[in-house]
Amino acid sequence: MPVLHEEIETNYISGESLPWVAFTPYSDEVFMKYWKIDSVRGEVVVSMRFPPGLELPTHYHTGIVIAHTVRGAWRYKEHDWVSGRGDTVYETAASSHTPESVGEEEAEVFFYVIGELEFVDESGNLRARENAKTALARYEAHCETNGLQALDLTVRHLTHPGSRNQYVRRVQQCRRPNGGEGTCDRTN
Amino acid sequence: MPVLHEEIETNYISGESLPWVAFTPYSDEVFMKYWKIDSVRGEVVVSMRFPPGLELPTHYHTGIVIAHTVRGAWRYKEHDWVSGRGDTVYETAASSHTPESVGEEEAEVFFYVIGELEFVDESGNLRARENAKTALARYEAHCETNGLQALDLTVRHLTHPGSRNQYVRRVQQCRRPNGGEGTCDRTN
Amino acid sequence: MPVLHEEIETNYISGESLPWVAFTPYSDEVFMKYWKIDSVRGEVVVSMRFPPGLELPTHYHTGIVIAHTVRGAWRYKEHDWVSGRGDTVYETAASSHTPESVGEEEAEVFFYVIGELEFVDESGNLRARENAKTALARYEAHCETNGLQALDLTVRHLTHPGSRNQYVRRVQQCRRPNGGEGTCDRTN
Amino acid sequence: MPVLHEEIETNYISGESLPWVAFTPYSDEVFMKYWKIDSVRGEVVVSMRFPPGLELPTHYHTGIVIAHTVRGAWRYKEHDWVSGRGDTVYETAASSHTPESVGEEEAEVFFYVIGELEFVDESGNLRARENAKTALARYEAHCETNGLQALDLTVRHLTHPGSRNQYVRRVQQCRRPNGGEGTCDRTN
Repeated sequence: MPVLHEEIETNYISGESLPWVAFTPYSDEVFMKYWKIDSVRGEVVVSMRFPPGLELPTHYHTGIVIAHTVRGAWRYKEHDWVSGRGDTVYETAASSHTPESVGEEEAEVFFYVIGELEFVDESGNLRARENAKTALARYEAHCETNGLQALDLTVRHLTHPGSRNQYVRRVQQCRRPNGGEGTCDRTN
Repeated sequence: MPVLHEEIETNYISGESLPWVAFTPYSDEVFMKYWKIDSVRGEVVVSMRFPPGLELPTHYHTGIVIAHTVRGAWRYKEHDWVSGRGDTVYETAASSHTPESVGEEEAEVFFYVIGELEFVDESGNLRARENAKTALARYEAHCETNGLQALDLTVRHLTHPGSRNQYVRRVQQCRRPNGGEGTCDRTN
Repeated sequence: MPVLHEEIETNYISGESLPWVAFTPYSDEVFMKYWKIDSVRGEVVVSMRFPPGLELPTHYHTGIVIAHTVRGAWRYKEHDWVSGRGDTVYETAASSHTPESVGEEEAEVFFYVIGELEFVDESGNLRARENAKTALARYEAHCETNGLQALDLTVRHLTHPGSRNQYVRRVQQCRRPNGGEGTCDRTN
Repeated sequence: MPVLHEEIETNYISGESLPWVAFTPYSDEVFMKYWKIDSVRGEVVVSMRFPPGLELPTHYHTGIVIAHTVRGAWRYKEHDWVSGRGDTVYETAASSHTPESVGEEEAEVFFYVIGELEFVDESGNLRARENAKTALARYEAHCETNGLQALDLTVRHLTHPGSRNQYVRRVQQCRRPNGGEGTCDRTN
């Protein structure tokens, strides 16, 4: 009998366990941290980091995108708002945007992406697709180039044993947060 | 002929335009900022803020929850990890958790929630449901009590005109981020 | 205060209340019955009817598609199965297919579609997009051409009052299905 | 390096390859054919068959349910419509229903279910949950009791090799549907 019971469990992903991967070939100044890549459904959970003064090519979304800005500020050239720290953008399906960073600080945005980003040229021709499969390929290439062990980022995966052990120790110290056992400050 | 074309457009939501709403009746120390409430599908996009030393009742999720920690640290008592700033948790359907804040700093977490949180007592009885409808009711009650105009948080809504105007001005200053027009620092 | 409470309720859609709309410009032998069109998320619930001996252009899916065959049989030329009456196909994101009807009977398939179908030519150029917006435009054009009142197919909509009245009468007869009040056979 | 590339491909599921599983403990007259069970997200694709004159207990949905009636007719006692062959019902999150079959024919309905069905008693107490995990347990118990090999119904799975072979033969005959090679009628 095949293994039917998927090994599923709420999955903690340490930010430290994942690299910032350059968003090649579109830019070497934009970096992605892939949290979850669901190749079956075509969904990606990802943080994105980009410097001030940046403009990215216009792209088209086939599904919704939810974007929460953690640091810095950015806008779409098609709209008259700026999304800064603590703002949220809900992007509808079949919309096109040209992202631009705003201000003098590096920006960081947390995204939940359903479907594809399609880079379209001025004549409306499709130049490139960005989706779960290209995200996975980019992550793996980065890991191989940099001698990192690629982690399983599918939504089926358990907490990575490595990061679990790391936090078991931390948790020992932190169990009673007001108990005076010293700091559990994660910002160190 | 009825209006068939929904007024849909990528929807920017300013963090300043939304209140932090106490998570009554569960706690008056936990605060929610509701970004989007989809009562048709039962989905909520929400930020949550809670102080150190807090434990919330055990709850059960009917769907997935994606949680990105923006500040502070928290854990589920059932797991041996701590989610701190810049970490992400992917919670699977049909899982139960008891949240606890960790460390000495207020925590803030950005959530995408599909389905319900159900508060269950020690005998397994359902004590309360937390879903899109209860979120909407809590938000509206807060606005009414505090004399605020409730915004339309459905996924069908355009950018709120008020916050748009606010940022049109800001954008004028920020259009050319390296152009020396002064600061667009959103953290002011 | 704006109307925040969406008029939402479980939504019955009578098959008789909806037309079969020709799948122009791709084919005038393929017909679509649109049940729900969600332009915000880019999702469509639709039945499709097509004659024997048909081949449709190759298309690419950006999201998943779930297809349940109600009548007839069809296949994708890229795969070595035939989906017949009572079979189900689960199509993954970022896959390409060339549909072909099989056998001598008209086929009817019920679909749940997330994202877009993109028609791509032999050189890989994008020729056309098929999504929630094009579906809505096709449905409305059909209604206008044929003097039909277009119904609201968004996921926010209540049961259409017209079809409700029609079935209230039917329900009166059918309330006690074994009660001898005569037939409630929907196939009449 | 772990296996990161999921074996994913458009997945054909033959109706003949799957059993009709009694919907115990709720009824031994209602039967489920599970097409896909996604325990991570809490979603189920399933056909349901039930006889005339049946009423099922009231249940509550945490997410949306899309239901297309293939044969027979049914209703929810809370609504004044009957869903018959070729009708579709779109059920919203956080709604409660009491299903009843209508007419004199067995009914068959194809469902896409997000989230849980919760059976609630007259006092509002939760009596039972029906979700992806209980669906999987029911399917596996049925297979074990009846000496059947359980198939992998997760959304990650390839077309079952067994059903593929079965249809490769059929496809050989059907390749040119108008070519006079004899019947490909799937209804035989």
